[in-house]
Amino acid sequence: MGMPPQRATLAQVAQRAGVSRSTASFVLTGRHTDMRISEDARHRVMRAAQELDYRPNLMARSLRTKVTKTIALVSDTIASDPYAGRAIHGSLAAAVSHGYLLFIGETEGDPVVEQKLISDFLDRQVDAFVYASMFTRHVRLPKLLRGQPVVLMNCLTRGARPTHHAVIPDEADAGHTAARIVLEAGHRDRIYLVGDPADHVFASRERLTGIRDELAAAGTRLAGTVGCHWWPDSAYDALCRALADGLRPSALICLNDRIALGAYQGLHQAGRAIPGDVSVVSFDDSELAAWLRPQLTSISLPHYQLGWHAVQALVGETADAEVRRLPMPARLRASVGAPSRAASP
Amino acid sequence: MGMPPQRATLAQVAQRAGVSRSTASFVLTGRHTDMRISEDARHRVMRAAQELDYRPNLMARSLRTKVTKTIALVSDTIASDPYAGRAIHGSLAAAVSHGYLLFIGETEGDPVVEQKLISDFLDRQVDAFVYASMFTRHVRLPKLLRGQPVVLMNCLTRGARPTHHAVIPDEADAGHTAARIVLEAGHRDRIYLVGDPADHVFASRERLTGIRDELAAAGTRLAGTVGCHWWPDSAYDALCRALADGLRPSALICLNDRIALGAYQGLHQAGRAIPGDVSVVSFDDSELAAWLRPQLTSISLPHYQLGWHAVQALVGETADAEVRRLPMPARLRASVGAPSRAASP
Repeated sequence: MGMPPQRATLAQVAQRAGVSRSTASFVLTGRHTDMRISEDARHRVMRAAQELDYRPNLMARSLRTKVTKTIALVSDTIASDPYAGRAIHGSLAAAVSHGYLLFIGETEGDPVVEQKLISDFLDRQVDAFVYASMFTRHVRLPKLLRGQPVVLMNCLTRGARPTHHAVIPDEADAGHTAARIVLEAGHRDRIYLVGDPADHVFASRERLTGIRDELAAAGTRLAGTVGCHWWPDSAYDALCRALADGLRPSALICLNDRIALGAYQGLHQAGRAIPGDVSVVSFDDSELAAWLRPQLTSISLPHYQLGWHAVQALVGETADAEVRRLPMPARLRASVGAPSRAASP
Repeated sequence: MGMPPQRATLAQVAQRAGVSRSTASFVLTGRHTDMRISEDARHRVMRAAQELDYRPNLMARSLRTKVTKTIALVSDTIASDPYAGRAIHGSLAAAVSHGYLLFIGETEGDPVVEQKLISDFLDRQVDAFVYASMFTRHVRLPKLLRGQPVVLMNCLTRGARPTHHAVIPDEADAGHTAARIVLEAGHRDRIYLVGDPADHVFASRERLTGIRDELAAAGTRLAGTVGCHWWPDSAYDALCRALADGLRPSALICLNDRIALGAYQGLHQAGRAIPGDVSVVSFDDSELAAWLRPQLTSISLPHYQLGWHAVQALVGETADAEVRRLPMPARLRASVGAPSRAASP
């Protein structure tokens, strides 16, 4: 690997422009007005800087100002997840709009890797950190980050009061939305949940709370749960078994799109039409949702917005120590319809 | 946003350890042996550094050494693509294994944004660049990157000789593999391509060349093409029309997994079994491939390896100006079987 080309120095620019080093410096740092430098000299300096491809040494400047205009995004596995990559996209957009550049690092959940990584970022004097999680969850902030400017993305600290600004999706509200969609289509009975509602999984717990509260407010409740892992094959197997055992659902609320794909396959296998016989609503709004036939109604995870608002809170405004819940908008498609009369008890 | 905590200085470490500033410096930069510094003094310096959480100022050091141990990954939209995010994952892994940290930036294909971004990275004196594309394609390297250490990821420059080290997937070989899979299952006739073979799209052109060459070597050829865009709904519509018009395919080679999804839906709609009536093979091996029923045989895009080898070439070894084509391994699943006797002419 070769060495990068030699940089033009301030002295070379000054010499070419025929001015003193300090005059060149005043011009190039935008202080020429204060310093009463002539328009002519200013033009010569700017031209010389351009011709020599001069770059102010930001690293030397940052040693004086203690600001490097860099942010580090430290995540568990966010870069390797197909959809969470959009959180990086949103973070980048916000960073660049404020003149910041973004480092990223993945810890794969290993505390030793995490410590080394954060330490390396501190050595490079990054100005601030985004501490991000792939799945929404509670975290303990690493010791090395205490006292640093940090915003939490898709995670939050435990305890009565938030210690940091945190940006998470409003999963409980998403649960309300999913239930409201099937209620408004006319379903009241035989509404089933599909997917194991794992109580230790934040999204699962919050989604389920929202669903139950919304149904209760309408005077009804879930008829039951088709238990399965959050993957297509597990959902397919569970639904095939349940349908074979006589289950006659009116609507299915699937805990994510992968489960919904398995549910589609199971319903198809059993000859049940969507939404003619059974309505299906889901969470995540991954690409898949729009590719299924019929297209799947799903409550979307705002990955891009998580990234954008996390970085925006770090550099754009004062970040209060609070948990900010971002809306999860519903994408209404063709998988929800009126209850089937034939299927009524 | 608060200011980061004040860093302990070398002088403070020296004072706490009761040694001179240069003694502390010799110890902390590993030169205590050369300088005949006592074990006792060394211990006191190390302890003081630990107690004060002293960090050597890498930025000041990099001003002297001109090496920042940072790499910038400049891409068009790689962070926002669901699957290409794995290329970032691979890049990160290689960078960290060599003690480098990774900046990322997206240009969204806008040359003005690209120039600003590269310029900002140069201001921060990154050591080297990965120039990456979301789709494999020919690129013109931005002027600002000429003379810098650069490796191209998933793209290459035009011209008789490569100007840089480039890492791309071996798409032509993948075409051979796809054709070989259907040939080895016993198909010879009525093998159709699904998807518009856009000649200006690198992956399309190379895949098709490989498919044609492999079939020709076996004494056969494509029976025809079911033209469609590279999306599920377009593939579904095109295949439904073709099947209604009497198409009786023995095997379908789909140009990517999204097309294969649409083909599955179209075959299902027409009551054709996979692989009983029609075998299906595809490219990309996205998550989807393993989720379809039956699971889809697909030739995988080595996203992680592209990232890994690009960074590895930059920092781990001498990167010759050559195009390195990475193998695209076949993931054999259940969508390919022997030709249907019933469907024979």
